[in-house]
Amino acid sequence: MLGSCLDRVREASPLVHCITNYVTVNDVANAILAVGASPIMSDEPEEVADITAICDALDLNIGTLNRLTIEGMRRAGARARELGHVVLLDPVGAGASPLRTRTALELLELARPDVVRGNASEVRALALGTTSTHGVDAAAADAVSEQNLDAMVEFAKGFAADVHATVAITGAIDLVADAGRCFVIRNGRPEMSRITGTGCQLSGVICAFVAAARAAAPAAGDVPAAGTAPAPAATPASSASDTTAAVAAAVACMGLAGEVGRAHLAPHEGNATLRNRIIDALSHLDGAALDGGERYELR
Amino acid sequence: MLGSCLDRVREASPLVHCITNYVTVNDVANAILAVGASPIMSDEPEEVADITAICDALDLNIGTLNRLTIEGMRRAGARARELGHVVLLDPVGAGASPLRTRTALELLELARPDVVRGNASEVRALALGTTSTHGVDAAAADAVSEQNLDAMVEFAKGFAADVHATVAITGAIDLVADAGRCFVIRNGRPEMSRITGTGCQLSGVICAFVAAARAAAPAAGDVPAAGTAPAPAATPASSASDTTAAVAAAVACMGLAGEVGRAHLAPHEGNATLRNRIIDALSHLDGAALDGGERYELR
Amino acid sequence: MLGSCLDRVREASPLVHCITNYVTVNDVANAILAVGASPIMSDEPEEVADITAICDALDLNIGTLNRLTIEGMRRAGARARELGHVVLLDPVGAGASPLRTRTALELLELARPDVVRGNASEVRALALGTTSTHGVDAAAADAVSEQNLDAMVEFAKGFAADVHATVAITGAIDLVADAGRCFVIRNGRPEMSRITGTGCQLSGVICAFVAAARAAAPAAGDVPAAGTAPAPAATPASSASDTTAAVAAAVACMGLAGEVGRAHLAPHEGNATLRNRIIDALSHLDGAALDGGERYELR
Repeated sequence: MLGSCLDRVREASPLVHCITNYVTVNDVANAILAVGASPIMSDEPEEVADITAICDALDLNIGTLNRLTIEGMRRAGARARELGHVVLLDPVGAGASPLRTRTALELLELARPDVVRGNASEVRALALGTTSTHGVDAAAADAVSEQNLDAMVEFAKGFAADVHATVAITGAIDLVADAGRCFVIRNGRPEMSRITGTGCQLSGVICAFVAAARAAAPAAGDVPAAGTAPAPAATPASSASDTTAAVAAAVACMGLAGEVGRAHLAPHEGNATLRNRIIDALSHLDGAALDGGERYELR
Repeated sequence: MLGSCLDRVREASPLVHCITNYVTVNDVANAILAVGASPIMSDEPEEVADITAICDALDLNIGTLNRLTIEGMRRAGARARELGHVVLLDPVGAGASPLRTRTALELLELARPDVVRGNASEVRALALGTTSTHGVDAAAADAVSEQNLDAMVEFAKGFAADVHATVAITGAIDLVADAGRCFVIRNGRPEMSRITGTGCQLSGVICAFVAAARAAAPAAGDVPAAGTAPAPAATPASSASDTTAAVAAAVACMGLAGEVGRAHLAPHEGNATLRNRIIDALSHLDGAALDGGERYELR
Repeated sequence: MLGSCLDRVREASPLVHCITNYVTVNDVANAILAVGASPIMSDEPEEVADITAICDALDLNIGTLNRLTIEGMRRAGARARELGHVVLLDPVGAGASPLRTRTALELLELARPDVVRGNASEVRALALGTTSTHGVDAAAADAVSEQNLDAMVEFAKGFAADVHATVAITGAIDLVADAGRCFVIRNGRPEMSRITGTGCQLSGVICAFVAAARAAAPAAGDVPAAGTAPAPAATPASSASDTTAAVAAAVACMGLAGEVGRAHLAPHEGNATLRNRIIDALSHLDGAALDGGERYELR
């Protein structure tokens, strides 16, 4: 069912503006290329509004934030929101330092992202900061497991409702939720957590999937004319649904790429080769393969 | 014919100072090492003049420019020009934002590069900015093709004459031109455009090739004493010829590495492995292999 | 004998805060993950003290220093020293510019690192700057060889005594010395010098090994309470010994990974694949394999 989302990426070939960390930026660029989209990296405050204006989506990743790139993220986020572009926030390390938590919360308010993607502890840090009342206690765990699954699904839905976004909490089990429903996705391999950057790559890939979904089925409310002041909390429910399916497709696609990549490892091969095999697999996957390999349930 | 240029790189082992983007910087360093040269990365304005002084060539790549690195590029460019070092400008994204176009044009004037390497649209953006009168209209296409080849060859020669540099316009067909002649190079593989960084790597590799060519055959006019104010438009025709052949050799070498790398891909391997195979191939190629695999004509 | 040090890393899984260059940062992160530890990258001055406080070790690498990251290194170094964390200084390019030499010397005094790791010329530049009187003349060579081995061992011990640190001088032959003894390590492959980043990776891996050694056997004098003003030259001799063995283990481990990685290369594979194979090998090595493959003598 999710495979058509991948096919759309290859047809639409959206352009993704990434302000992302310098640790994994090369893998992010190659992962975006591998699914058929194109990346542009730019973080200088003086030019980010110009760059984001020619793109379809904006990936804001605070993994190696500094005072210059924070200002770049602010300006790009505001401009992309104004233009109705897809915006994703990846709050890397939220909770690990006051600066990260504060910056992520500021971007959440300023850029009102369509998608927030992080691990359980990062999303919890954001929820605490927004005084969400939806099950933050239940999310005291740092990961989603079969034991806390019901509570985490409720937490994800509640936080999604609070921030008017699709929320992806990724880990051994991935949750992709909007206010009304939650995809529980069980693709992926545990070895992926021992490689840096699979989460960052996923954020870039999600941007491509959501931009392609919107290009295929634009909703009037989605894309205000350039320069139009955005209305608060404007995302309509139907558009949120499309976005959520596209995010779920990207998450399943990345997980499946991890499975395919792992299957091709020789016994002496390890972390670094797996990293390459995942991007290799992304470049070969198509909609039919994703339909055949996706493993999820709706809650 | 071009193979001896590669052999010279391995003999001279020039040192290349790179101020390049953080997306592909690791691949640039490894590509430079693979052809037998050595890279140094440094962009802090306070030290770039010191670093460039101990090197043979300077690679200025504006892919992720910011206010600090722009100042670094200015100072390094001015110092390298003063010392008569090889200077290359890679105007990544010129035309995509006013800051990029303006910075590229400023560096073109300030550092008077020996080589400008970009794709067709980047070089066109520079030509428009320098009010070149040589066939910019003909270069309205964003790529060199068999259909627009004659016009693009004239455009490349004209722009090279205007900026007193060797101009490399790379893509499916690569052009390497000075005022008098143009190498039309047909090495390479289309898959290379789906990996980030092959252009950036090529720019670093070109620096190594040109520096090695000059080390092998220094021309009096080429290397003014340190501190000497450089004369405008000083590059003599004979030196320009050597530079152009060296650039053409680097372009053919990179394209051939793409062909060799592609030939070694297993069916399940894709983008990320190809990226590695290209650098692997660069590390194995020698002059004889380049002579055997080069595919070009002179116009 | 050194294998237990690797096993301890996998048991303790220490967290390493890296302020390192953007050329090789991805490989540093993946190498740290491959030995069973975890990396965090952060260089913004406003947050580095918070980030380093939740880590076990700090890797200060000046490879692409700039005014912002220098300030980040100062603050992180001071805080990590205050907390008694493991601190390593990697003085990349010391001697190549006054800024690098000055910054490395300042960090040496400010952060009083437990370990200094560099190549022979970098360590010599530091020794000249600290007016060490121990055999700097003997270290006029840019590399350790069988010919200058005795003199270099004395130089390494003397500099280690002067700076109250374990000193690792790495190259074709690796020396790991404290004031009293020196490991002369002959693991590794010459091809490793033609890949960027094996030294940077080693610095990150050393941080993990030393942090794990301390976690296994904490010495009272090692870990002052947070906020305690550190006493000058406080490292006790017994702790220095443990640190030195852990550093030697990390150096041997990285060299052995190079040997294993090289053994798995197909004839057409080169630099880029070797880079991956080294990290692959790190992810598979265990204590028994290190015990079996280590090649060193004590002087």
